[in-house]
Amino acid sequence: MATTQNLNALQLEILKEKAVRLRIDSVRATTEAGSGHPTSCASAADIVSVLFYAVMRFDPRNPRRTDNDVFVLSKGHAAPLLYAAWAEAGAFSPERLLSLRKIESDLEGHPTPRLPFVDVATGSLGQGLSVGVGIALDAKDLRHSGQRVYVLMGDGESAEGSAWEAAQWAGLHRLGNLCATIDINRLGQSQPTMLQHDLETYRRRWDAFGWQALPVDGHDIAALLAAYRQASDTRDRPTIVLAHTLKGKGLGAVEDDEHWHGKALDRETANKVVAELRKQLTGADAQWEPNFPADLPAGSAGSAGSGQPRAASDAKPPYEIGGKETATRKGFGDGLAALAPVDSRVVVLDGDVKNSTHTEEFEKAAPDRFIQGYIAEQNMTGMAMGMAARGRVPFVTTFACFLTRAYDFIRMTAISNLSVKFVGTHAGISIGEDGPSQMGLEDLAMMCAEPNFTVLYPSDATSAWRATWLVAEHAGPCYLRTGRPASPILYGPNEQFAIGKCKVLRKSGNDRALIVAAGVTVPEALRAYETLQEQGIPVRVIDLFSVRPIDREELIASARDAGGLVVTVEDHYEHGGIGDAVFAALAGERFRGYKLGVREIPRSGKPAELVEKFGIDHRRIVSAVQSAIA
Amino acid sequence: MATTQNLNALQLEILKEKAVRLRIDSVRATTEAGSGHPTSCASAADIVSVLFYAVMRFDPRNPRRTDNDVFVLSKGHAAPLLYAAWAEAGAFSPERLLSLRKIESDLEGHPTPRLPFVDVATGSLGQGLSVGVGIALDAKDLRHSGQRVYVLMGDGESAEGSAWEAAQWAGLHRLGNLCATIDINRLGQSQPTMLQHDLETYRRRWDAFGWQALPVDGHDIAALLAAYRQASDTRDRPTIVLAHTLKGKGLGAVEDDEHWHGKALDRETANKVVAELRKQLTGADAQWEPNFPADLPAGSAGSAGSGQPRAASDAKPPYEIGGKETATRKGFGDGLAALAPVDSRVVVLDGDVKNSTHTEEFEKAAPDRFIQGYIAEQNMTGMAMGMAARGRVPFVTTFACFLTRAYDFIRMTAISNLSVKFVGTHAGISIGEDGPSQMGLEDLAMMCAEPNFTVLYPSDATSAWRATWLVAEHAGPCYLRTGRPASPILYGPNEQFAIGKCKVLRKSGNDRALIVAAGVTVPEALRAYETLQEQGIPVRVIDLFSVRPIDREELIASARDAGGLVVTVEDHYEHGGIGDAVFAALAGERFRGYKLGVREIPRSGKPAELVEKFGIDHRRIVSAVQSAIA
Repeated sequence: MATTQNLNALQLEILKEKAVRLRIDSVRATTEAGSGHPTSCASAADIVSVLFYAVMRFDPRNPRRTDNDVFVLSKGHAAPLLYAAWAEAGAFSPERLLSLRKIESDLEGHPTPRLPFVDVATGSLGQGLSVGVGIALDAKDLRHSGQRVYVLMGDGESAEGSAWEAAQWAGLHRLGNLCATIDINRLGQSQPTMLQHDLETYRRRWDAFGWQALPVDGHDIAALLAAYRQASDTRDRPTIVLAHTLKGKGLGAVEDDEHWHGKALDRETANKVVAELRKQLTGADAQWEPNFPADLPAGSAGSAGSGQPRAASDAKPPYEIGGKETATRKGFGDGLAALAPVDSRVVVLDGDVKNSTHTEEFEKAAPDRFIQGYIAEQNMTGMAMGMAARGRVPFVTTFACFLTRAYDFIRMTAISNLSVKFVGTHAGISIGEDGPSQMGLEDLAMMCAEPNFTVLYPSDATSAWRATWLVAEHAGPCYLRTGRPASPILYGPNEQFAIGKCKVLRKSGNDRALIVAAGVTVPEALRAYETLQEQGIPVRVIDLFSVRPIDREELIASARDAGGLVVTVEDHYEHGGIGDAVFAALAGERFRGYKLGVREIPRSGKPAELVEKFGIDHRRIVSAVQSAIA
Repeated sequence: MATTQNLNALQLEILKEKAVRLRIDSVRATTEAGSGHPTSCASAADIVSVLFYAVMRFDPRNPRRTDNDVFVLSKGHAAPLLYAAWAEAGAFSPERLLSLRKIESDLEGHPTPRLPFVDVATGSLGQGLSVGVGIALDAKDLRHSGQRVYVLMGDGESAEGSAWEAAQWAGLHRLGNLCATIDINRLGQSQPTMLQHDLETYRRRWDAFGWQALPVDGHDIAALLAAYRQASDTRDRPTIVLAHTLKGKGLGAVEDDEHWHGKALDRETANKVVAELRKQLTGADAQWEPNFPADLPAGSAGSAGSGQPRAASDAKPPYEIGGKETATRKGFGDGLAALAPVDSRVVVLDGDVKNSTHTEEFEKAAPDRFIQGYIAEQNMTGMAMGMAARGRVPFVTTFACFLTRAYDFIRMTAISNLSVKFVGTHAGISIGEDGPSQMGLEDLAMMCAEPNFTVLYPSDATSAWRATWLVAEHAGPCYLRTGRPASPILYGPNEQFAIGKCKVLRKSGNDRALIVAAGVTVPEALRAYETLQEQGIPVRVIDLFSVRPIDREELIASARDAGGLVVTVEDHYEHGGIGDAVFAALAGERFRGYKLGVREIPRSGKPAELVEKFGIDHRRIVSAVQSAIA
């Protein structure tokens, strides 16, 4: 239908009727569930009808077809509308919509990728545009496919700064295959939005951010269709359709009422509303046919790249034990660059710190797969989420502390179980003089909390290099923690590492304590070992490496061998780091534990001074062991 | 000087000379430190000279005077410039600048409030504007003072979405006492910025966000002064000065060079640069005098309110044991509303969820101290940080999950040790049908990681009410965790609570296990107690209440009494929650621990179904105890 220039009467009738069905479905499902957001569905029903049944080219029976046009529902609370749109397109029976929000149903309160037509979970607002930008850039710049990407946003969520991060990036990169719509229904959850129906201000803002901005009556089918056609015809920049709508449109008395956010209609009201809506149905929409891209050649969506079996590569870390001290961030950067030719799925996103994180080596090796996200960590992450949903293996890289900026996106990455690889460099107080604002000291707490995250924390450049390859190969979200200072090479080029496995570095038959360290504290633990050895106190030393999953079996065995005395030491705040992870692993064991970590807000100083001052150096480890066995 | 209309030759000479001194100071300090960002100081030296020595009205010898005009250095890496500006104004000897970045010096790598002239730590970019907005709104709308607030931003950081959140809020509220400057030096850390020197695009964006936008040559003293005068004369909206500058301006060969971010000059280069700069000094700036607001009446800055001694109030929670089930979020909302007349320092910020968090009751009680932040959690937090720095006690309130959006700001709140009170409602899977995107399941990991945070987690409406008052009275950053579902009233109106103290709800002389619960799992633990009691297994039950600081003494005593068997149960992901906090408290005790928490990504469903499915209900507690003692 989108290919014809004129909208005939039947087409108009079909689109209007589909919109009525979407409203009916949304009301029925939410009333049956007893909760949900019917009014937020109703305002966008005409927009979704036009997009799904006239504009988008997709196969409703194959939602995972990679050459379908893509739809991202950023305003995730309108989930019933999304589900209705797919059901009314033929993806599944509309009766299944009545399972909305039930525990056995995948039609959850907000969309998740349990459903085949959802790329990324939404429901935390202001994220969908970044996801759409990621999918659009992948399609346009990497796959060179003709796909178009449509994002539906709410007006309230356009207050999120992340929306403007996405806007500026898409504008800068002139993503002509991206079209977003804002459902400007004037009402937020608790009161009117900032701009209400001031479409002119919306227009000026988006225009200034490099978008074609098209104000339109969001309940006028023909006007919407014209706007989307203009969007399709504009290839040099993204388009935003600014749709003036009414919340609860078509739902009787609740239409445009301020107090009807996130409430299901009671059965009686719902029955009346549905009865009124049904009067508008003529059955014309039975004549609708999917806009199936049968004319597209196979493979038209391009490829997300492929990863060779790692064993086929003879690349390995270039560092020698006892060789030049090297930072783990450098080990990561080298490993990433070496991975470039081996795994074409890998893309790297940078937050304007590539010369500190050493991702610039990857940029040299594969400039087309290096994406500059600038200082906008939320959008950088959102783009990665979109690309991961489409088969890429994106590395999101910046200082560990600045990943806190993207924690809501990281949380949604977990919910979506996407293979995004977060890499934080400059972890901990060992960065030195730049001071606490640049120190990642809560990143393990944040990342390990997510139950499906894999978290690796290498202690030298070799293990960092290996960890980079491990996370690239592992399916699922990962976090790799690296540090700033040059540190000793502890492992040779052939040393192998595994997710879930630690390294026992020192052991004897009569160990009196187990020291568990990670990252920069491993060399400290080894120095403590020497001192204690001189004092006739043999101890076991473990390099934890894999924080999540943790090597519970080895930790238990080593703790038992060491008489149940365990000292952990980490360059992280005390709560939520490796100490807690180790203690949790050993909790059933009746061990005695001492946790060394950063206990107060740190400050600027030289790395060695800080490591001593904040109590995570070899001296403190020694005294912890001494006092524990005294 | 700012009061005169004409800039005479001497004044111009003074300002130029001060700018030269700022450059010299910045180069000398960073070279002495061996690290830092001299080029980022040099680009802004003329701006800072004009602001500090001609525009701002402040007493350099009393930086904490509340009626001083306020300066916020958002581009915190230009810290040496800030320090130099205060030193050259007379706050301290310029020779002290050479202690930059040393462990014994408060002149840290990025500014922190260890210094009397720093309100809020900066260094994580894109936060200073929100801080300035908070200070400006407090001065304008709450104190009705004539103070003006100046924020200096970098161009790279204007890519942060948080900057646009702040921009839209200030524009909407027409904060005419706010003037920001962007030091548009074209170069980021690793490459040119998105917009480089495209001032027209900057101008259009800020204009569209409701600001007076003034492009200017940032090295032209007279032009800068004219711009700031125009800003002062414009009272109906904030002003942004868009300053075209060169990175490293005046520093010889490094000027406008892409590869000179964050690098100190070597001694030889620095000596040459300083010698050249010194040739421009004539000594005219000795005639500069502080623009001291001696003409301002005392108290012209207004008051940040005051808190009565709590004992003077006879307000107390209105709930009765066994009375109507009430959600902890409601207990919080009621407590907050009751606090409104008692403590006029308290302000409340909402992220458009006031009807869910129950802060709308506070809005009714004190509408002038209720601030609608809309769906922009970063700016909401940044505004609170600014207000807290000025003596307010701001409550930042939204769903617990959406506080993740502001984690970088929360981290900086910790570094600044500000009395911001974060309140997360709708914690955990017990919210039910809305699904995982709306469930706060990592908030304890996030908040407890910060070493100076107080974290309370009440289990009923009474303790939530009390906790609200406790955090308001406590100096320092706090987090209060509340839930969505109505739950039993466990405590009477006269029950007292304290930070750092738990409640022992069930105990006997022969307890065989200790169950530690919090929030919604407390009623579950009490049900488990009943079941176990029927089976002849007496157990102790603790309502943890205070997660940080934790009641280590009572936990140890109870764990010992219960034979060293401890079961924790929480509506939070397993890592970083109350289980880890309890295990850490008991780590020296050779206890046996079992941690019940949410172990996988949850889904939509009824609260009771979810609590059972994800293993934190009374049945699971019973079976954990049974299997542990078997």
